[in-house]
Amino acid sequence: MQALHIIKIGGNVIDNSENLHRFLKDFTALEGYKILVHGGGKVATQVSETMGITAKLVDGRRITDIDTLRIVTMVYAGLINKNIVAQLQRYGNNAIGLTGADGDFIRAKKRPVKTIDYGFAGDLFDGSINPENISKLLDGGFTPVFCALTHDGEGQMLNTNADTIASALAVALSGLYETTLVYCFEKKGVLQDINDEESLIREINPERYEKLKTEQIIHSGMLPKMDNAFTAISCGVKAVIIGHSDDLGRLKNKSGFGTRLSK
Amino acid sequence: MQALHIIKIGGNVIDNSENLHRFLKDFTALEGYKILVHGGGKVATQVSETMGITAKLVDGRRITDIDTLRIVTMVYAGLINKNIVAQLQRYGNNAIGLTGADGDFIRAKKRPVKTIDYGFAGDLFDGSINPENISKLLDGGFTPVFCALTHDGEGQMLNTNADTIASALAVALSGLYETTLVYCFEKKGVLQDINDEESLIREINPERYEKLKTEQIIHSGMLPKMDNAFTAISCGVKAVIIGHSDDLGRLKNKSGFGTRLSK
Repeated sequence: MQALHIIKIGGNVIDNSENLHRFLKDFTALEGYKILVHGGGKVATQVSETMGITAKLVDGRRITDIDTLRIVTMVYAGLINKNIVAQLQRYGNNAIGLTGADGDFIRAKKRPVKTIDYGFAGDLFDGSINPENISKLLDGGFTPVFCALTHDGEGQMLNTNADTIASALAVALSGLYETTLVYCFEKKGVLQDINDEESLIREINPERYEKLKTEQIIHSGMLPKMDNAFTAISCGVKAVIIGHSDDLGRLKNKSGFGTRLSK
Repeated sequence: MQALHIIKIGGNVIDNSENLHRFLKDFTALEGYKILVHGGGKVATQVSETMGITAKLVDGRRITDIDTLRIVTMVYAGLINKNIVAQLQRYGNNAIGLTGADGDFIRAKKRPVKTIDYGFAGDLFDGSINPENISKLLDGGFTPVFCALTHDGEGQMLNTNADTIASALAVALSGLYETTLVYCFEKKGVLQDINDEESLIREINPERYEKLKTEQIIHSGMLPKMDNAFTAISCGVKAVIIGHSDDLGRLKNKSGFGTRLSK
């Protein structure tokens, strides 16, 4: 089985030009099949503000109203995605920038209105991902670069969490490839002591995870991320790695990068 | 040789939701391999104005400064392109939205500064188009949808005329496919009498073209378009058809649509 890396980056990489270039060079150097998934960043907020559109939050959660959907379609699929693609091309990586609507790669369902109307937020479902269509790009020598947008198949673009997209891609593609999911964030990985970047835990399996939870070393903020990671692993993903975007260059050495979660 | 239609639409289709939907349905119904190329539209101007950026013109020609490039990257590659893709998906056409940076499909050179600095305007050159990479998408069952953006291979996005992109794609792909280039605009085609939509000229070959020019039936505005069309034909494109976007449905009947230019 061909190996595949799916790497997710967030605003902390995108917002800093120097970090972004270093990351994109390291990403290019990574051998084999790969997919990049990126979130938004401050530029979406800046563009919104310039256009006089303020973020709508209900109970601390962002609402994707029609104006916000227009902004994120412009900023995620246009500005951020195409600039990442152009930079990857510069480094010799044959990137192709995508939303879930392109190639019908990722469908979602508009989140049902219960107590809160989240607007054009799209939730993934079983069968959201079209692995056969995505594999045509990978086998064609392209590197798919996904932003955090999907569609409903009825002509509507939807806003979907980038972490969720990365995880769903990894699970769906694990039937075709030996898939490793990599979350880049602003820490070196899971730390034994949150205030000590040197206290990185290199490997966590389900048994150790239970122990770390009992010892309260893994606390509130990390729990959903870790639970999702182990769910992905139980669904066929070979490993989930959590590490700092600046360190991606170490990934190809199979050591020294982040915390590796596996069976 | 597999037949390929390359169809270019402009602002007159994009700016009118009803026209756009009719066009996209007709485009979907067209059998065989196809590529859509779209220009901008009023929405780019509207977004610019909302963001407080005014169009810069020198001698009546638009200058793509850095702010304008950001806007067109957002609007062309994001808002317009992805909404067209989502609609095509709705109609069952497996569209994939692209700039020239994606897949390294179309490279351009930043226009040299002579008397006027056009900013980030990209001119095509011999070898701009990568037909092998594009054919991977066509053979994979995808319908490429290109907006009017290219890249220089060095990380810089560039703004390139959509008519020029459509023509260059047609010429470059005519080595692999039997290629027909279709320009949709707001007239039924080349008219014998500019004020009479019923005076459509169905067919023009190079001899007739010379005669129509001598008789001054084809006048100033149409001359560059026609010259470019006949150049494309002399470079291997089977035919160039100029017609009204509303009538595209008639194209599949091999008659009744626009003016057909051929050898």
